[in-house]
Amino acid sequence: MGADPLAALLPLIKCNIQNISAKGLAGALTGPAERNDVNTVRKHLDLLDGKERAVYILLTEKLAELAGEKHQERDYSELLTLLKDNR
Amino acid sequence: MGADPLAALLPLIKCNIQNISAKGLAGALTGPAERNDVNTVRKHLDLLDGKERAVYILLTEKLAELAGEKHQERDYSELLTLLKDNR
Repeated sequence: MGADPLAALLPLIKCNIQNISAKGLAGALTGPAERNDVNTVRKHLDLLDGKERAVYILLTEKLAELAGEKHQERDYSELLTLLKDNR
Repeated sequence: MGADPLAALLPLIKCNIQNISAKGLAGALTGPAERNDVNTVRKHLDLLDGKERAVYILLTEKLAELAGEKHQERDYSELLTLLKDNR
């Protein structure tokens, strides 16, 4: 992520917090878990290890559960199984 | 936390993000892990279960490691052992 990952991440984090304030958690939800993008989540898992990988899996499971409540027409079971099998 | 946990948490989250912007991660660090407050962390563990407990443990381990770099005169080994034994 270059020399200063914090400087790269802070604008994204601030934007997320503003969206959550305005739209609530489910309304602000974006990203690969919400899009049911199993291939991107698999690539993220390949790039992570240790505590970061374990936290990613647990939080992405929470996001996929929230996404499943938001988009009841979508089937998140492949994504949830991928995450559970990699715990 | 009352009727709207998100409304209670958002001001704390925004304040944290502002502090991290101004002081960096280690400079902005506060809370029981940074204070080496093992009893409070033990109470939090007693109140949590499931994914929330697993995420709390992993993130608090990261915080205690960062706190150990910030306060090299403090011994965080009891806190780190408590967290590891509860994984």
